Amino acid sequence: MSIDLNQKLLNEMLARRRTGYTLEAPFYLSDAIFQADMKHIFGKHWIFVAVEPQVAEAGDYITVELGHESILIVRDDDMQLKAFFNVCRHRGSRLCPDKQGIVGNIVCPYHQWTYDLSGQLVHAKHMGDDFDTREHSLKPVHVRSMAGLIFICLAADAPADFDEVAARMTPYLAPHDLPHCKVAVQTETIENGNWKLTMENNRECYHCMTNHPELTISMFEYGFGYQPDPANREGIDRFAGIVAENCERWEAMGLPSAEISVLDGRATGFRTQRLPLDRSGESQTLDTKVACRKLLANLKEPALGGLSFWTQPNSWHHFMSDHIITFSAIPLSADRTLVRTTWCVHKDAVEGVDYDVENLKAVWDATNHQDRRLVEETQIGIATGAYEPGPYSPFTEELVEKFTNWYVERMRLCTAA
Amino acid sequence: MSIDLNQKLLNEMLARRRTGYTLEAPFYLSDAIFQADMKHIFGKHWIFVAVEPQVAEAGDYITVELGHESILIVRDDDMQLKAFFNVCRHRGSRLCPDKQGIVGNIVCPYHQWTYDLSGQLVHAKHMGDDFDTREHSLKPVHVRSMAGLIFICLAADAPADFDEVAARMTPYLAPHDLPHCKVAVQTETIENGNWKLTMENNRECYHCMTNHPELTISMFEYGFGYQPDPANREGIDRFAGIVAENCERWEAMGLPSAEISVLDGRATGFRTQRLPLDRSGESQTLDTKVACRKLLANLKEPALGGLSFWTQPNSWHHFMSDHIITFSAIPLSADRTLVRTTWCVHKDAVEGVDYDVENLKAVWDATNHQDRRLVEETQIGIATGAYEPGPYSPFTEELVEKFTNWYVERMRLCTAA
Amino acid sequence: MSIDLNQKLLNEMLARRRTGYTLEAPFYLSDAIFQADMKHIFGKHWIFVAVEPQVAEAGDYITVELGHESILIVRDDDMQLKAFFNVCRHRGSRLCPDKQGIVGNIVCPYHQWTYDLSGQLVHAKHMGDDFDTREHSLKPVHVRSMAGLIFICLAADAPADFDEVAARMTPYLAPHDLPHCKVAVQTETIENGNWKLTMENNRECYHCMTNHPELTISMFEYGFGYQPDPANREGIDRFAGIVAENCERWEAMGLPSAEISVLDGRATGFRTQRLPLDRSGESQTLDTKVACRKLLANLKEPALGGLSFWTQPNSWHHFMSDHIITFSAIPLSADRTLVRTTWCVHKDAVEGVDYDVENLKAVWDATNHQDRRLVEETQIGIATGAYEPGPYSPFTEELVEKFTNWYVERMRLCTAA
Repeated sequence: MSIDLNQKLLNEMLARRRTGYTLEAPFYLSDAIFQADMKHIFGKHWIFVAVEPQVAEAGDYITVELGHESILIVRDDDMQLKAFFNVCRHRGSRLCPDKQGIVGNIVCPYHQWTYDLSGQLVHAKHMGDDFDTREHSLKPVHVRSMAGLIFICLAADAPADFDEVAARMTPYLAPHDLPHCKVAVQTETIENGNWKLTMENNRECYHCMTNHPELTISMFEYGFGYQPDPANREGIDRFAGIVAENCERWEAMGLPSAEISVLDGRATGFRTQRLPLDRSGESQTLDTKVACRKLLANLKEPALGGLSFWTQPNSWHHFMSDHIITFSAIPLSADRTLVRTTWCVHKDAVEGVDYDVENLKAVWDATNHQDRRLVEETQIGIATGAYEPGPYSPFTEELVEKFTNWYVERMRLCTAA
Repeated sequence: MSIDLNQKLLNEMLARRRTGYTLEAPFYLSDAIFQADMKHIFGKHWIFVAVEPQVAEAGDYITVELGHESILIVRDDDMQLKAFFNVCRHRGSRLCPDKQGIVGNIVCPYHQWTYDLSGQLVHAKHMGDDFDTREHSLKPVHVRSMAGLIFICLAADAPADFDEVAARMTPYLAPHDLPHCKVAVQTETIENGNWKLTMENNRECYHCMTNHPELTISMFEYGFGYQPDPANREGIDRFAGIVAENCERWEAMGLPSAEISVLDGRATGFRTQRLPLDRSGESQTLDTKVACRKLLANLKEPALGGLSFWTQPNSWHHFMSDHIITFSAIPLSADRTLVRTTWCVHKDAVEGVDYDVENLKAVWDATNHQDRRLVEETQIGIATGAYEPGPYSPFTEELVEKFTNWYVERMRLCTAA
Repeated sequence: MSIDLNQKLLNEMLARRRTGYTLEAPFYLSDAIFQADMKHIFGKHWIFVAVEPQVAEAGDYITVELGHESILIVRDDDMQLKAFFNVCRHRGSRLCPDKQGIVGNIVCPYHQWTYDLSGQLVHAKHMGDDFDTREHSLKPVHVRSMAGLIFICLAADAPADFDEVAARMTPYLAPHDLPHCKVAVQTETIENGNWKLTMENNRECYHCMTNHPELTISMFEYGFGYQPDPANREGIDRFAGIVAENCERWEAMGLPSAEISVLDGRATGFRTQRLPLDRSGESQTLDTKVACRKLLANLKEPALGGLSFWTQPNSWHHFMSDHIITFSAIPLSADRTLVRTTWCVHKDAVEGVDYDVENLKAVWDATNHQDRRLVEETQIGIATGAYEPGPYSPFTEELVEKFTNWYVERMRLCTAA
């Protein structure tokens, strides 16, 4: 279903958005709104794209695709992260076609124009004596690391609240020492659905009990919202007690655990909370035990629950005692979204000895595929003319509503600007 | 060839349509006209989609795709046919992804919202005490059976002339007792051509002698229009005699056989005629003998010719003594059309004993593939800029002209409304 | 990256084109500009599509696709080339679906309308006594051969300067006697890039030394532009000497060799030059020796270098003593281009005795694939928002600039008309 619409209609739909309800169909279907999403949401906000272990050494680079853009992220000789648009200033060839590699200088494969790791053009043959290399540097992209999580921003002016988020989040994240991890495995799942459905699905667990048998082994049913009624009063109360007791214990160990939730009303919306896990309480695995015998950083205690960190518009993360899982959702088109999942373990952990990859990724591999199916069925349903916005549960879909609110408020602001 | 056009240009092309000629190229190529066709033709008329044997028992359901819509057709506990848009009123997930199945209630796979077979929402967790389930019923779709042929209409108000068509056609169709048949085999052919080319190809046999060697074993060359001239006068006269003689015999057996032809000038255009078959005269098979030893209903005589039934805009059917073949053409895009062919036999016939599937479908399987090629070559030719509307034969393409007339008159009416 | 734009914006971009720089991104990406290119460049100019050996005998035909058009090129009984739009005047079916074949008359597969090789409709059944076959002839297309190279023009009025080009080029081309060759092998490469990138890549060898190891065995590095500086002064001078010496020798043999370069400022822009080859100097092969022992026409001397012939907008050719290679670039969409490469040898040469196909095509097969990759990486780079027009080298990209100039000047003229 292809829908053409203009700015005026988009503004009207943003203005009339009914709180507590899913969005109107064009937000999930229209190519024009997809282009607007890429321009305003993914073009002007901090987007999570990678982790520092992917560019651990000087000269390491990765390329990431974001909308029409290809971005080259490289660690320079001073161990700083740099990011550039991955396109030559001569005839426009992509510079680095590979997803990752190691470079000294960046050499265009077409005519060998050569740039150093600061983006300066240092060599170009046959261009004549009047040619000024300084006018043909690579174009820079904002790049920042938050305790090892790499965010980029394509806009000329990146949202300033990143610093404050980093300041508040670093005490939560740093004890897991992501920069000194290694990537154990990374997967890419294509969901044939709009990126907002991917995010809405991520922001509730109303669907978990019947759809995620692997995930709900370690995840408490009560952890993500529940309508209180006499029949489940006891379960809710018991869970509250477990949370309080564990958080006190973790805080005493120097691990901040209290919820912070500022998902809307700002550019870089985020939420965090360290929540206990069920059964042995150690990790999001099929047996709830750690998947890696070598714990992260200098942690000694395996039962640290899961520190979850969610950012608007496109990421979620689970930090445990033994491994870290990060998720980056990247829109590909109005009805296709890439979910890149990365599992990190201590860089000295030995595969086959300390951890087994299949065991490490079993829960979220299964969960990703289940979520993919849910998103795809929703995309199909919304693409019918019979779809109309439906009501969110005030108990289990509160964070979905926060996501939708954030999206609508950012679109209103950015399209007005 | 992608053509953008507006309502004004469409109206001009509809107004200037030259009688006796094929349509201008955009009618076969333009996405905008395809969307208009789906809205006005397939969205406001009775569309043939299935046969009753596909939903024989209470709880049986099928899903059919029509344009952007997915429609759920179910037989309820009172054995009535019901049809709904196959989309949940909560977050918009498709309810039933499968093509067919059996249900008690209709349960959304996402968050388990549960609807009964009348479409009422009977269960939804966590929605709060103020939530009114009665406001979230499934949206209904018009559904009707004509002697076992299932038609749907997506519009709020379905064309009223269906009742009259059913009244006139039921005496022709009922003796073959389709509701007590079973589906022996069903095929789906994708033709890379506009649906109107599929229909135009169906409405003439000018192309049959050189393109359909299997079909023309049982089909009389003279049955579908011929330019009279001295060289074929004898053949035409002989065929007229065969028709008259057989029809008298069939009418005497209680089988109406006379032609009814009201293909244009109305919403539900149709045509029917029982025509003799060549050689043994029994069935559209390679040897012209019945393909199923157990005849339909309580029929005793195998040589009943073929009762053909054509409807605007999208179906044709052949009812014989031993089996029934139905064809449903469903547009997929401006240049892709699905033809779903269903062969039905008596429900008590035993495969391998009374009939052989390969033998049953041999003629029309071959014919469908030959027609697909003809449609595709025509789509390719019309997509060239060199195409211009060409003349229909006044002798062999009269029914093609009737189809085109019907299409143009319905589009004029519906787009004016 | 899909860009919609109107005529006004196209005119503005044509008007503000910065000389010496690549074009703005929409020229390589926009569907609207692709359609304009097909209309004005490929619809109104002489387009190289085939060689005479493909239609050597009376009744031989080939079909070529150009934009939305399918064109039938046939040699009639008087051995003249004729070309028609390959579409029936009845219902619009494509007439000949095959790429090549032999016909007496042209018979539509749908309803057997029959045309003779002059395009006249000579037979159509059932059309009635008033039907005038003379009003339903095939629509003709301009077709011309230049010493065996077949060009077509889709416009009603073809550019008149073809005659002058043919007059100037025939003395260069005729000694190789292409009409009495045979096609030894033909390949089709799809480049996922805009056709103008294919052409720009063809018009410079700045990229050759690092990207084409096979081609640069026989090709002199200095033959296609070089920035003079003290370090390469000696090489440049030596190459000039080799050129002068060989050209004198070839001219004395009756083989015109001097450069003609009129690439812009006219409809049928072209350039030619006979250049020496390196090492044994015979042919563009891996060992620089002839690939076919039987030389073309009545040539005796194998070391004739390579006569290159480039035409705007879509072809290049290399004529050597033993074989001829022709290249035809056909745009398929804004980001897809077909490159058809044809290797011809003397018609009496025997495969496996006089020549080996793998050896014959080794250099350009490899080169084509290398060029494909370069074009595709450039298309990817230009599709990023970060791309901006970059500077051509005044030394090695002068002919690229000529191509771009020709394109811009023709578009300005044709869109103004």
